[in-house]
Amino acid sequence: MARQERAIRTRQVILEAAGAVFDEHGYAATTISMVLERAAVTKGALYFHFPSKESLAQAVLDEQISFGAVPPHPCKLQEVVDMTFVFGQRLLRNSLLKGSVRLAVDQSAPSGVDHSGAFRQWADLLVRVMEQASAQGELLPTVRPRQTVELLVGSFAGIQLMSRALTDREDLAERISQLWGHLLPGIAVPGLLTGIDREPDRGLRVLAALDPEATVDATAAGVGHT
Amino acid sequence: MARQERAIRTRQVILEAAGAVFDEHGYAATTISMVLERAAVTKGALYFHFPSKESLAQAVLDEQISFGAVPPHPCKLQEVVDMTFVFGQRLLRNSLLKGSVRLAVDQSAPSGVDHSGAFRQWADLLVRVMEQASAQGELLPTVRPRQTVELLVGSFAGIQLMSRALTDREDLAERISQLWGHLLPGIAVPGLLTGIDREPDRGLRVLAALDPEATVDATAAGVGHT
Repeated sequence: MARQERAIRTRQVILEAAGAVFDEHGYAATTISMVLERAAVTKGALYFHFPSKESLAQAVLDEQISFGAVPPHPCKLQEVVDMTFVFGQRLLRNSLLKGSVRLAVDQSAPSGVDHSGAFRQWADLLVRVMEQASAQGELLPTVRPRQTVELLVGSFAGIQLMSRALTDREDLAERISQLWGHLLPGIAVPGLLTGIDREPDRGLRVLAALDPEATVDATAAGVGHT
Repeated sequence: MARQERAIRTRQVILEAAGAVFDEHGYAATTISMVLERAAVTKGALYFHFPSKESLAQAVLDEQISFGAVPPHPCKLQEVVDMTFVFGQRLLRNSLLKGSVRLAVDQSAPSGVDHSGAFRQWADLLVRVMEQASAQGELLPTVRPRQTVELLVGSFAGIQLMSRALTDREDLAERISQLWGHLLPGIAVPGLLTGIDREPDRGLRVLAALDPEATVDATAAGVGHT
């Protein structure tokens, strides 16, 4: 491996280890030593990439939005729906993502960590797609994309929390489907409503189409976020 | 004060102190000493009521549902709406409630603390009111009260989290209003829709009607949960 490639790989290994430790222990109880042990890298390597626990937490938080990536869909509202299901699916398996989500809802993260950033990044990303949906005539005229998107991001955060608390996220896909069942009638033009796929296994199917070979062992290593 | 009355009062003082400390520090970082100092009671008094940190956290969690109490309303859907606004209003000021909400969304609470209980208690309480709404013909025939209520509880948990992260809950009432704006069209029969009050100041108005004298300094002391 070239040196740069190795550095990228080491950084990724550290991030994944940090995500797992943050997920299990929360921000306050996590120590750099715990991450070092989990990642099996040298102290020097870790500090080269992340000078502090804050910077490590921030990097874990900043990874979050990449887990919403889905293939473009001609119907932009379906694309937004797909992002929530795919994100939910990845959240079941990927420790980096689990850690990132825990940090986002963790009040104990210090002021040096912008744990509100994930909410804002999600809202900004989704507003762009919803505005495309609006331009394509997919939304009811009453819909204001920013308001709807902020409601969606907030609701999703709580639904995954409730699902984790009650069933260790086993029913998350079902709850996402319920969320859309309640939101879509007030968002989508009537002609679109029945065409939008919000079945609980939507995330699995989108991921399978994305990379058929990866489905069996999906997300096991978190590589490529599938 | 009679002895029993004094004991009830001491218990309440301890619960309020514990709520404040749990809110500020989270479960893991909270110690009994911190609660003792805040409550200004003796160790003996605290252990008489709460033999452990777990039991203290559990008691703080169990208080949560009482903060949703609102006067009965002839329209049961309005009563559910009122519960969310009043709860949101109390959440701005009451430290016991803030601590309780933080514990409910805190992954670090140990297995001895049932932090999923608050979600379940809310769902059970709201299902009963929604079933009355259904019996009175207020709901669309497609609505299944249990599914709608679970979605509402999960969404509310996330909305208050996002509001806390972005604005220290300053925009919480506005976000609750948005939530109902998106949910009601899929829940209420058309004839009811415009009649349901979901203005952001609904919580303040319900509380003012409940106890006109308490409004000026509402919830300052958390006494009586107003």
